[in-house]
Amino acid sequence: MSTRTGESLYWTALNKGKRSVAVDLRAPEGRELVAALATAPGSDGGIVVDNNAGRSWLAYESLAERRPDVIQVRIQGHADGRPAVDYTVNPEVGVPGITGPTDVAEPVNHVLPAWDLLTGMTAMTGLLAALHRRDRHGEGALLQIALADVALTSVANLGWLAEADERGADRPRHGNHVYGTFGVDFATSDGHRVMVVALTSRQWDALRAATNTEKVFAALEDALGVDFSLESDRYRLREMIAAVLRPWFVARTLEEVGHQLAAAPVLWSRYRSLHEAVTEFRALGSPPVLVEVEQPGIGAMISARSPLRIAAEYGASAVAPRLGQHTDEVLAQVLGLSDAELGRLHDRGVVVSGSA
Amino acid sequence: MSTRTGESLYWTALNKGKRSVAVDLRAPEGRELVAALATAPGSDGGIVVDNNAGRSWLAYESLAERRPDVIQVRIQGHADGRPAVDYTVNPEVGVPGITGPTDVAEPVNHVLPAWDLLTGMTAMTGLLAALHRRDRHGEGALLQIALADVALTSVANLGWLAEADERGADRPRHGNHVYGTFGVDFATSDGHRVMVVALTSRQWDALRAATNTEKVFAALEDALGVDFSLESDRYRLREMIAAVLRPWFVARTLEEVGHQLAAAPVLWSRYRSLHEAVTEFRALGSPPVLVEVEQPGIGAMISARSPLRIAAEYGASAVAPRLGQHTDEVLAQVLGLSDAELGRLHDRGVVVSGSA
Repeated sequence: MSTRTGESLYWTALNKGKRSVAVDLRAPEGRELVAALATAPGSDGGIVVDNNAGRSWLAYESLAERRPDVIQVRIQGHADGRPAVDYTVNPEVGVPGITGPTDVAEPVNHVLPAWDLLTGMTAMTGLLAALHRRDRHGEGALLQIALADVALTSVANLGWLAEADERGADRPRHGNHVYGTFGVDFATSDGHRVMVVALTSRQWDALRAATNTEKVFAALEDALGVDFSLESDRYRLREMIAAVLRPWFVARTLEEVGHQLAAAPVLWSRYRSLHEAVTEFRALGSPPVLVEVEQPGIGAMISARSPLRIAAEYGASAVAPRLGQHTDEVLAQVLGLSDAELGRLHDRGVVVSGSA
Repeated sequence: MSTRTGESLYWTALNKGKRSVAVDLRAPEGRELVAALATAPGSDGGIVVDNNAGRSWLAYESLAERRPDVIQVRIQGHADGRPAVDYTVNPEVGVPGITGPTDVAEPVNHVLPAWDLLTGMTAMTGLLAALHRRDRHGEGALLQIALADVALTSVANLGWLAEADERGADRPRHGNHVYGTFGVDFATSDGHRVMVVALTSRQWDALRAATNTEKVFAALEDALGVDFSLESDRYRLREMIAAVLRPWFVARTLEEVGHQLAAAPVLWSRYRSLHEAVTEFRALGSPPVLVEVEQPGIGAMISARSPLRIAAEYGASAVAPRLGQHTDEVLAQVLGLSDAELGRLHDRGVVVSGSA
């Protein structure tokens, strides 16, 4: 929520680049308009994404009567129709049990609504695949995707279910250590923190060189009969490796650490707060994937372009519409409604226009 | 890593349903084969996804000389070419600073490689959009997408950068509370834990009814001059609401809690470990999006179908290939190589076949 304006920054950020049509779905005429929009003609028409449950007039069968090759993508909570949101799905798939500090007994919810983001992109992939098929073969499709299924398939796709099955238990909590390899965070002398990862033996070599610990780790390999060029040994002895490296980091400022890690080069990054990311963008204008837009209703607002670059260029930026901002424009363009017809719909309260 | 077999469960899970061709990229002939595969003819050919850096023979310009309408999707760490992985990108966008228990001072990395998953799906969306454009207009495309950009655009798209900008600081850590509304976890008498969310006033009504706290909260609204039908008041007084509700949960078993919440109905879920999810699937065979496959090299393994249902049906399951399992099949099918030509490539060690 924007404390300056009372507008939702979340809503605004999620809806940028869209057109908004405001229709009263309780009115039969309103439903007719939405069904007509969903089944509009043309090769780019006849596509609808919804999270409808129980509205028969928006069911695939109803829409397919109007346009047999309609593509409908329906997003659900659970596949059986039960409601769910990101925050209720995440506990069910076991991620909070392996997230967080090792000394915490309770589950730790991650804050990023990862399942929402991933469900949206998976739905979009399904939509484009269905459109591809329709272009080629003329067939429409009803696609459904449930948030709970996205979460469960993701932990399966990472091998985590198979691993828990074989282990007969969950993996233990690892705190900020990366599972299966060497990677962990270190504090610097000036109160900053960095993340350092050595996935490959080359990255491990660079890390030892940067921290002047080659002889130390060679002696430890001899003494312990291990081989740190192996990811499995780096993982197994991660706590010891971190303990050996820690004094190097804590004796140096972030600037010194960064300079020497980058020269090696070590795979690393610094912990930067959301606010620091904003401050750096304002000071440097980078990275170029971020952009400041003039958002009606809010004013200057940090926003983002698409992360997909086409021919090395980021796309344009966009702002969010007001609710109903494009009501008349869309109904005229897509359904060919006349000014007189639009006027009658407004008079009867079936549609509403919002101003930018 | 499968402790039974030494195979990587992670690799196996990620590569299911793919075909594998093993080619020596140090050999000029090997590079020629890969470039030929990437630019194969036909409306489904000429598509390549890579994470190449610095191989000029796999550059878009080289491929476009062979097939002008080739579609290349390149996945990067940073957009400027610097390497990055999920675990180094996450600290840079500030998520660890707002994740985890409120009494922890250090950043808490989330364990789910959300940026990897999201980058993969966003790349696939870009690929399908480019294919759609090529089908319509005959144009190829070079698309690039950086893990770091996906992470930064995601926190921008959630409104988090704009919020930090307006606040002049990061939002505070909220533990397991949901930001901006009422939602938090509760322990039950038998040591289980549930997540309860009241996003809407209807969900809030159901929660009060299920826990028999209607009069309590009505009295608190009077005493404090607040209105819990407003999300903002439920959010602001979340600690107090949780404290009032906690005794109801801790006096009941998970079964009792679940029964009464479901009847209300409250939006809730139970915390289930990865291993419990596996055990329930083995006992009940549900949810149907999971499947047990016979994975060559590993044996029976819990896997997943696609979460996208087409006409209400999940798709088929799949297993991972062995490295090089489809070398001969693909080179014969796509490039039309003869047995004699394949034999010569094998003899010179340019390609390798793996057996299933």
